[in-house]
Amino acid sequence: MSLDLAAIRGAHERIRPYIHRTPVLTSSRLDAARGASLFFKCENLQKIGAFKARGATNAVFALDDATARRGVAADSSGNHGAALARAAKLRGIPAYVVMPSNSAKVKIRAVKSYGAEIMFCEPTEAARESACADVIAKTGATLIHSFENEDVIAGQGTAAVELLEDIPEVDLVMCPIGGGGLLCGTAIAAKSMRPRIKVIAAEPINADDAAQSFRAGRLIHTPKKFTIADGLRTNIGEPNFAIIQRYVDDIVTVSEEAIVSAMRTIWEAMKIIVEPSAAVPYAAVAKGKIDIGGKRAGIILTGGNVDLDALPWM
Amino acid sequence: MSLDLAAIRGAHERIRPYIHRTPVLTSSRLDAARGASLFFKCENLQKIGAFKARGATNAVFALDDATARRGVAADSSGNHGAALARAAKLRGIPAYVVMPSNSAKVKIRAVKSYGAEIMFCEPTEAARESACADVIAKTGATLIHSFENEDVIAGQGTAAVELLEDIPEVDLVMCPIGGGGLLCGTAIAAKSMRPRIKVIAAEPINADDAAQSFRAGRLIHTPKKFTIADGLRTNIGEPNFAIIQRYVDDIVTVSEEAIVSAMRTIWEAMKIIVEPSAAVPYAAVAKGKIDIGGKRAGIILTGGNVDLDALPWM
Repeated sequence: MSLDLAAIRGAHERIRPYIHRTPVLTSSRLDAARGASLFFKCENLQKIGAFKARGATNAVFALDDATARRGVAADSSGNHGAALARAAKLRGIPAYVVMPSNSAKVKIRAVKSYGAEIMFCEPTEAARESACADVIAKTGATLIHSFENEDVIAGQGTAAVELLEDIPEVDLVMCPIGGGGLLCGTAIAAKSMRPRIKVIAAEPINADDAAQSFRAGRLIHTPKKFTIADGLRTNIGEPNFAIIQRYVDDIVTVSEEAIVSAMRTIWEAMKIIVEPSAAVPYAAVAKGKIDIGGKRAGIILTGGNVDLDALPWM
Repeated sequence: MSLDLAAIRGAHERIRPYIHRTPVLTSSRLDAARGASLFFKCENLQKIGAFKARGATNAVFALDDATARRGVAADSSGNHGAALARAAKLRGIPAYVVMPSNSAKVKIRAVKSYGAEIMFCEPTEAARESACADVIAKTGATLIHSFENEDVIAGQGTAAVELLEDIPEVDLVMCPIGGGGLLCGTAIAAKSMRPRIKVIAAEPINADDAAQSFRAGRLIHTPKKFTIADGLRTNIGEPNFAIIQRYVDDIVTVSEEAIVSAMRTIWEAMKIIVEPSAAVPYAAVAKGKIDIGGKRAGIILTGGNVDLDALPWM
């Protein structure tokens, strides 16, 4: 398949019965604070509490029957695992999810609740990849990579399609970047639908491989420091970086403090629960990292899975 | 004016430019847990974070210019005060809000943020009424009672109108009851639009004057014990009780524990922030106090103003 707007629209048709069309919310308080019109695409209100339901569902339902029957596998710190488990359950096939042993409890519970088989491993990329390879060798399951898989990227792009259908006149669209699945889908959809739109990503300064790569013009993988934005700890993928270089206008970075503050501001002003990763673009806006004065900006709020017993301001 | 569906539709036209049409959200997890189809009307996502924006805005904009110019006044533990302050600011007139000294900080901040003048008083109904009478005598402001005022009741009924427009086929509609403004507006709207619909209210067992009155067939005012559902501590009003006797099918009660548990369940399953009062109807559903098996039920989530530093499970 070629990864273009047609593929994203095809994904949208395929997954429509299985996902929410999430609302776009606004806040006059945040608009006044920022001197802009902000349109929040609430993927925290999506099935499994994150946009990941889109990509995983598209990838699972795109498989032919014979392949699907052997099941699907992924390594995931959480939301992709839950999304894949749910999609597999909907299709009636097995799912195998490799999770680092330090995954958030709420995310482990979610994967279990959809009946997937979980394999825990050390929280390193090497351990995750090796555990994943093992289960695939044993079961014949198909690997559904959480951000490099083209069907996953096409699925993630459907959030931006809905945002631009609902709010046609936006000057820029923002999302966080971890591996790059959402950003690639968003950028392809947005630039194809509105060629003059700006696409800007935000990431934690503690996991700034994407920003470094973007500025250097070559893929740089960095050893990770801790970031509270657990969905964004991953290095970006090679195929993702190629798409980013072609379509993305800027990648900005924010501090841990700015992320927590933005998260709390969104909870208080909008009465919705977003996880730290989801607050990263608004953190960049609040810190003046993105020039949005007088503009209309779409922000994809990526997820809302947090442990309510361990909020960062407790 | 007569308090009927026409008045509620009139209110809807009047306030439409100033309020959000809030989304109706669903949760397959909660549906599965309860064996029913639940439709949550998200007034926590309303302006000022509560349905109270509807009634107060209608009352303020229904005033003639000469009366409006002298300002509006209310005593309120919080959401009505914020709603009135905001509506007055929109109309460019003064607002005077009497608040008990133990009001939630987040609610005090909200009232202040709209530029209203706040007068603090002891947290008793007598002290509130007397402080309110004082300010009216001094300023000539019009009292906008938070649940007895007919324009307020008509405004609150617009949430049910939207719910039934979006989801026509519901078997019952539920909301919490404090003073009775929302319940009266909801009941008039729902029974007028769908005569066979059931209207059921829920209240904390620690503030069960409405349930006692409903069963006794006469207005009973009770001394209040503490309830975490701070929006529901008030006794119901006389005009409200007359409407309730005519239109409401049942009033059920729930424990403090059930309220906190329901609140947390809604946060976790739906990724939205609801205040304790808003969780009361779902608490009744979760505890089997309302027979909803196999039914389609609308639930008005009334507000989302909570102090994030003092969550009940911290």
